[in-house]
Amino acid sequence: MAFGLLKGKKGIIFGALNEQSIAWKVAERVHEEGGRLTLSNTPLALRMGNLESLAQQLDTIIIPADATSMQDLKNVFLQSMEFHGGKIDFLLHSIGMSPNVRKKLPYDNLDYEYLKQTLDISAISFHKMLQMARKLDAINEWGSVVALSYIAAQRTLYGYNDMADAKAMLESIARSFGYIYGRDKKIRINTVSQSPTLTTAGSGVKGMENLMDFTERMSPLGNASASECADYIISLFSDLTRKVSMQNLYHDGGFSSMGMSYKAMYVYNKSLEGCEDCDD
Amino acid sequence: MAFGLLKGKKGIIFGALNEQSIAWKVAERVHEEGGRLTLSNTPLALRMGNLESLAQQLDTIIIPADATSMQDLKNVFLQSMEFHGGKIDFLLHSIGMSPNVRKKLPYDNLDYEYLKQTLDISAISFHKMLQMARKLDAINEWGSVVALSYIAAQRTLYGYNDMADAKAMLESIARSFGYIYGRDKKIRINTVSQSPTLTTAGSGVKGMENLMDFTERMSPLGNASASECADYIISLFSDLTRKVSMQNLYHDGGFSSMGMSYKAMYVYNKSLEGCEDCDD
Amino acid sequence: MAFGLLKGKKGIIFGALNEQSIAWKVAERVHEEGGRLTLSNTPLALRMGNLESLAQQLDTIIIPADATSMQDLKNVFLQSMEFHGGKIDFLLHSIGMSPNVRKKLPYDNLDYEYLKQTLDISAISFHKMLQMARKLDAINEWGSVVALSYIAAQRTLYGYNDMADAKAMLESIARSFGYIYGRDKKIRINTVSQSPTLTTAGSGVKGMENLMDFTERMSPLGNASASECADYIISLFSDLTRKVSMQNLYHDGGFSSMGMSYKAMYVYNKSLEGCEDCDD
Amino acid sequence: MAFGLLKGKKGIIFGALNEQSIAWKVAERVHEEGGRLTLSNTPLALRMGNLESLAQQLDTIIIPADATSMQDLKNVFLQSMEFHGGKIDFLLHSIGMSPNVRKKLPYDNLDYEYLKQTLDISAISFHKMLQMARKLDAINEWGSVVALSYIAAQRTLYGYNDMADAKAMLESIARSFGYIYGRDKKIRINTVSQSPTLTTAGSGVKGMENLMDFTERMSPLGNASASECADYIISLFSDLTRKVSMQNLYHDGGFSSMGMSYKAMYVYNKSLEGCEDCDD
Repeated sequence: MAFGLLKGKKGIIFGALNEQSIAWKVAERVHEEGGRLTLSNTPLALRMGNLESLAQQLDTIIIPADATSMQDLKNVFLQSMEFHGGKIDFLLHSIGMSPNVRKKLPYDNLDYEYLKQTLDISAISFHKMLQMARKLDAINEWGSVVALSYIAAQRTLYGYNDMADAKAMLESIARSFGYIYGRDKKIRINTVSQSPTLTTAGSGVKGMENLMDFTERMSPLGNASASECADYIISLFSDLTRKVSMQNLYHDGGFSSMGMSYKAMYVYNKSLEGCEDCDD
Repeated sequence: MAFGLLKGKKGIIFGALNEQSIAWKVAERVHEEGGRLTLSNTPLALRMGNLESLAQQLDTIIIPADATSMQDLKNVFLQSMEFHGGKIDFLLHSIGMSPNVRKKLPYDNLDYEYLKQTLDISAISFHKMLQMARKLDAINEWGSVVALSYIAAQRTLYGYNDMADAKAMLESIARSFGYIYGRDKKIRINTVSQSPTLTTAGSGVKGMENLMDFTERMSPLGNASASECADYIISLFSDLTRKVSMQNLYHDGGFSSMGMSYKAMYVYNKSLEGCEDCDD
Repeated sequence: MAFGLLKGKKGIIFGALNEQSIAWKVAERVHEEGGRLTLSNTPLALRMGNLESLAQQLDTIIIPADATSMQDLKNVFLQSMEFHGGKIDFLLHSIGMSPNVRKKLPYDNLDYEYLKQTLDISAISFHKMLQMARKLDAINEWGSVVALSYIAAQRTLYGYNDMADAKAMLESIARSFGYIYGRDKKIRINTVSQSPTLTTAGSGVKGMENLMDFTERMSPLGNASASECADYIISLFSDLTRKVSMQNLYHDGGFSSMGMSYKAMYVYNKSLEGCEDCDD
Repeated sequence: MAFGLLKGKKGIIFGALNEQSIAWKVAERVHEEGGRLTLSNTPLALRMGNLESLAQQLDTIIIPADATSMQDLKNVFLQSMEFHGGKIDFLLHSIGMSPNVRKKLPYDNLDYEYLKQTLDISAISFHKMLQMARKLDAINEWGSVVALSYIAAQRTLYGYNDMADAKAMLESIARSFGYIYGRDKKIRINTVSQSPTLTTAGSGVKGMENLMDFTERMSPLGNASASECADYIISLFSDLTRKVSMQNLYHDGGFSSMGMSYKAMYVYNKSLEGCEDCDD
């Protein structure tokens, strides 16, 4: 489907790595909807992934940047505005990484230098992006900013570790900056709290597949895919949602409002029936 | 703007009264987006308002119904399916009324027969609508249902009275039925929690204009209008939001995430400065 | 343990049936803490349970009442004030019942007369209690009112049915009346959202034991028992919590803030491993 | 009042500065309730305040520590355990400071080194405290940990700045660590979200007095004082609340559940009536 929802709109997509990435799907959908965009990711990610092929497909440029560097961010905004011939209308932050998770350090044995990196990459980068955009006056009035989050910001999940705290901070930044950017420039800022998704980032989380089986059975509509997430973000970039701001929006097939489903309980019960070592 | 977002989609809009109504604006926007719809409201509302003119404009029919009557609701669904030549894809519930508010009975002196009416009209009617739709299998898979709510469901506002309790129940019904209808038929159900709006219904609430001044100054993007609400609901009826369900979605310019804004505090402070009887 | 926390305080406990009841445990703990209380329940409950033995043990009276009858409620307050020789300081509402659950009518096939009874008994009775207390000026300043709720008010649980909507309304009544009673008389009103508990009422819910196994493993501190709930309510009746009001307070071993625990996932995973018919 | 609620319990209070401090009041109340405690604060705070007098009054020791230093924290726990002759039962974190707020840097012009300090002092220090306690196995089973928070973690307040993000992260740490410490050692962790309070820390926030006037009129029970907060924290340290964990508990006279009160609207309206420059 394509409706021309973003005709004439220009933006920047941070965080696309490969075809699995939500940011990649968003970029494709933006293009289908008539929007124009530039792409940015870290030099390392550019080597690991295949973003070049996406840039060619969408006829755009890639601007390498470490999103924790104000200088790099400045460069992304300036180059993007030059490419677009003016200010932008939308911005996607799809960035997150925890060295503590990668190194399998449990939450009660965090390395605090790693924690600072987790926060810097996964949360503070969002503030830096917004602060730089504000300084450069890089976003048009009624522009829309979205960052990707996860329900771990509200509810603890085994293994999600310090990313939970980073996501809680990310959502707070969306509110705090959403107030200022809304009041001054009518720009809205929201986070999308997406189902667990088998992206390259998601696959680093322990026991991801079984967790996704559980959330699939808990969610009346099933887990939301990366493509569906892209559709939703298109709606948030479009002019249909101009007065939605400072919100954390669950895109999860209903999971966040479930206490217990028949389908998940069915699986759980099967285990209980014959469980000899469930209390080990 | 018009994007063809609802091309081929059919639905029912409950609760349009006159040009101020959110439901009226939704009906107009549905039509612009290529959707087809039928209209329903109570016989009394049909006499008070001018829904006939909207029906003519949108080339559709009005099906009078008391939304607390299962028989009337059955008739609305059957006639709508006949009109559309098949099942529907979207449904709007924009219905609410409190005899306690109308009769100016304060919350600590409720008439319990009136309370039952408040609940029956403002909340249970939503369940009846869904139960009847489910029985008749009247909604296509991946259909979308929206009901209008208000932040009084979470936070007490002076004068909103038993409508707060009705809205809390309405939002709960959206979750409870959203689970079942999602699991069985992939149908999503959400509530939109809209800024205070000067509709005929809204104007019944005590001190509405001053409250709206406060919420306007508190909300970084200002209050959301009925037209903007219609735009948002279009996005929720469209296929862009298929995995959003069982949510209460604030459409309020950011109000719900504000504790105190500079602008609102400015007005409040002016009063404090020279206030001689503020403690009366 | 006993600390004299309620020395000199007087109150009413609604809803004790037998030794399993949370309200029963609360009455015992109130007594231990030096408080005095009267007991009330329906004539039917008085026949089914053994409240008489509790009344003897606590040296108090039972005042039979249908909590949906203003006349009966008036009688409870008047007799209690006479028994206590003055106004009361605390009030417990532990009342809930759904004929739809009892008759095993699923949520998409509710009987609407039953739904009215569910609401009347489980939610509106709380408003009636408060409105009658307010009219009779039956509660001392800085008094404390608690009603028992359940997380189904926020998240849908398979089988909990229309009780979810009743609990959502109950919690809203606590807020709405908490504003008025707080402003006028400094009386606080809260709900306690308790772990699933194997009381006579709880045992009516489908699949209760297995659900309790799941919540036990999800909650870092395990499910909260009826006795622990009584301890918590004592703290809410005491003067230590005077400025807590209009809150829904989870007493659930941490369950409400969990997304997934290691222990629950362990059981779930065991089932997945060898599951041949999990998708049936 | 004194009930012996903490008889035999031992703990550590971080963050008392002077008689206005919430932590100071907590220390006094702990002592009244029969508990024993050690005190800790930064060397700078020890010079600015008069903690020595409190230590003498409560017959205890002060252990200077920078709560961002694991070495200092280790020292606090070890010395406290030596002083108490064993493990502790309760812990209060009342620590927060933002150099950005102090230097009056607005939220869209943050200094990122300062932001790191804000987070390190106001949020990460809480994790460090818990991680050190866990490593030293310093807390008895069924111990209770409380950190002080503020509603800015959920709703943006003009001028609260990056402390909002720090508080959001603090509350997330309480959940994340609450899961682990609960599962492994039955220790509960909660945050108390307190009314704005005129402590030395609170007085640094811009427009604090007028904001407190607003929250006073919005809250049906009025703002909660530091003394009342101490009472509440006593209840959370006591055995009455053993199954409450991973919660953010509002202690605010009802403010968090209010949308608009009659009293606050009265003041606001007075200003609107004759306001000539309200739109400046």
